Amino acid sequence: MTEMLQTLKGFRDFLPRDMQAREYVTERVREVFKLFGFEPLETPTLEYAELLLGKYGEEADRLVYTFKDRGERHIALRYDQTVPAARILAQYQHELPRYFRRYQIQNVFRADKPQRGRYREFTQCDIDIFGTTSPLADAEIVACTYFAFKNIGYPTIEIKINDRQTLFKTLKPFATEQVDVFSIIQSIDKLDKQSEASVIEELVDKGLESQEAQEAMAAIQGAPISDNLREIVDASLNLGVPEDVIEYNPTLARGLDYYTGMIFEVFVPEYPVGSFAGGGRYDQLIEQLGGPSIPATGIAFGFDRMVEGAIQLGLIPINESITQALVTVFDEETQKYSLKIASQLRQAGIRTEVYPELDRLGKQLKTADQKKIPYVVIVGPDEAKQGMATVRDMRTGEQLTPMMEEVGELIRGKLAN
Amino acid sequence: MTEMLQTLKGFRDFLPRDMQAREYVTERVREVFKLFGFEPLETPTLEYAELLLGKYGEEADRLVYTFKDRGERHIALRYDQTVPAARILAQYQHELPRYFRRYQIQNVFRADKPQRGRYREFTQCDIDIFGTTSPLADAEIVACTYFAFKNIGYPTIEIKINDRQTLFKTLKPFATEQVDVFSIIQSIDKLDKQSEASVIEELVDKGLESQEAQEAMAAIQGAPISDNLREIVDASLNLGVPEDVIEYNPTLARGLDYYTGMIFEVFVPEYPVGSFAGGGRYDQLIEQLGGPSIPATGIAFGFDRMVEGAIQLGLIPINESITQALVTVFDEETQKYSLKIASQLRQAGIRTEVYPELDRLGKQLKTADQKKIPYVVIVGPDEAKQGMATVRDMRTGEQLTPMMEEVGELIRGKLAN
Repeated sequence: MTEMLQTLKGFRDFLPRDMQAREYVTERVREVFKLFGFEPLETPTLEYAELLLGKYGEEADRLVYTFKDRGERHIALRYDQTVPAARILAQYQHELPRYFRRYQIQNVFRADKPQRGRYREFTQCDIDIFGTTSPLADAEIVACTYFAFKNIGYPTIEIKINDRQTLFKTLKPFATEQVDVFSIIQSIDKLDKQSEASVIEELVDKGLESQEAQEAMAAIQGAPISDNLREIVDASLNLGVPEDVIEYNPTLARGLDYYTGMIFEVFVPEYPVGSFAGGGRYDQLIEQLGGPSIPATGIAFGFDRMVEGAIQLGLIPINESITQALVTVFDEETQKYSLKIASQLRQAGIRTEVYPELDRLGKQLKTADQKKIPYVVIVGPDEAKQGMATVRDMRTGEQLTPMMEEVGELIRGKLAN
Repeated sequence: MTEMLQTLKGFRDFLPRDMQAREYVTERVREVFKLFGFEPLETPTLEYAELLLGKYGEEADRLVYTFKDRGERHIALRYDQTVPAARILAQYQHELPRYFRRYQIQNVFRADKPQRGRYREFTQCDIDIFGTTSPLADAEIVACTYFAFKNIGYPTIEIKINDRQTLFKTLKPFATEQVDVFSIIQSIDKLDKQSEASVIEELVDKGLESQEAQEAMAAIQGAPISDNLREIVDASLNLGVPEDVIEYNPTLARGLDYYTGMIFEVFVPEYPVGSFAGGGRYDQLIEQLGGPSIPATGIAFGFDRMVEGAIQLGLIPINESITQALVTVFDEETQKYSLKIASQLRQAGIRTEVYPELDRLGKQLKTADQKKIPYVVIVGPDEAKQGMATVRDMRTGEQLTPMMEEVGELIRGKLAN
């Protein structure tokens, strides 16, 4: 009994207040995704385990939830949205448009050690453009990302951007048999969290000569922006991204080895807990994942962090109560007027509850107060006789007594202020 | 490879066109749920298996997806939304309002035999009011259901309603040691699919005397509406449900034994495939499920059937294309104008794609045609020189050449018509 009343560790319930924030962020980003022509897609929660295993690296494989179903099929729970998207691209390649833009907002599952801010079920939110290697597609991803963040209202949005090819080209000359270019890049990637000296030290520990490590560091820090990236940034600006939002950062590397071109991350300096979103171009991954040979560029939004940040920064217009008006009931005689008024309020678009029990008025008002419902409508025998109703503003205590058929208009007017 | 490119049997991908229909139905019902003061709630996909097993009956237990996780915990996938709601009511009882109205729209999983219209992962959509036995709460559920269906646009909505107490009271006298009242009710429940004679035959097969079976049938068919149900129906009418929508049906029984009061089902006669939604009052279930002793009334919408029906009846305004305008690109010189126009269109709320490659115009137009994008914007060197753009209506072939900064207004005006 004690156990069954718990959620599993690493899993969460979302009560109405949490849901309001989550729905707000979802709707704000979805609005922008659609403006950029991205189309919704959903895949099943369960897939053949063979589809997912061996796709994310050995370490990740251990984090995939797998089991055998009653038909002895080896099943896995959704681990990310990229592998299922690769399956979709293969399975429906003749139905999908050549340049396919999709967004996908679904939960994924990872049997990871739960810790602060890390959950075993969480929401991923991805946009990608498949089918083109054009820098314009990269710019569309950058611009869509910027406007999605802007639509939530974060005060400052910073996009750090780089080109993986610049990293490869600049650092390749420093690679040795012992320390390959990926390993050098992985160390460089830590510059946002570690000092230059400690990254150089790490490179030396890995096996680079001290001189070489220092030269590699200087070379990448001074690497000029690539023509490809210049084109992406220019196009992003033309698409409306303000110039001060985008910052070229030649040492940005992103951990994942599958990026082949532009890479970028989004930060909100007012909520400095790491990147809010990260993505880039990955032209070989879909094929590596068993899909067709299709180039791709996209970004994954850190949905939970975005929600947390938006709450912390006060961006979410949380209604104290979803319900805007409580209609009280007095007795069986007058009850029908209460119900008709409730119906009228709903027709006027006002979110309305009818108090369900014939409790005394004081108790009904107390409920409205506890639920922070801003307006209460009262119809007792006096009001009923005169075809009127009492409207009480719960914050000020002010009471008005309009005609019954005017209650909706009155409250709508008050809510609009 | 062949297997990994498949979805598991009984599971579905939702491509953009499917998603449009599903999102439309979701938004229409959610709009009404909120108008009735229902608040969103979500629970995890995974729960302790102990929470779910033994709650739905032996047969159902075999349909629950269960497995052991790496920590040897016995896990189950969400099977319905009522048992998790019972857990929520127990776990958060001091945080939730006394009369708690919640809606929940999440996927559930059943290891059932897949067949036409039956899936192993499908969407449930529930509204419930917890904490009161009042007929007003039942009426709020009935009215909210009616308006949710109305908001989708079904041409005719029929609500069949009954009171389980009427069934108990009327049929109890006919129960024998061999055939209890639940068994009689289960047979009576088949009257919507079987003839009166065959139901009587079934009762006789079960062990009733022929005379008794016939009398039971006559008694229930002639049973008058209960005072409780009269009150619920009257309140529903006052809440705005039209009189001809609700039909008292004394032989409506609903299979599940846990209903304790009002029961009802929704039908759309223009799409006669069975009930679209069903629910009722269940005052003991939450406690039986391990929750606190809390009365409840609610309904579960058959989401997939509602979507199917809405598609079949042509209620869903499917946009041939989500994207409303394609902005073509001509060369590197003029490209910046294309991008600026795309940005302008999006600011004007027009869903816009930028064609990503410098293909010849004919190919770009063909793409718009295939994707059924209604408007194409063209900026070549001539247009760029004059600060103009060509707007092509893909349906009529008509072309206009407004000033660049007027393209958004022009297309918005055309879309509004």
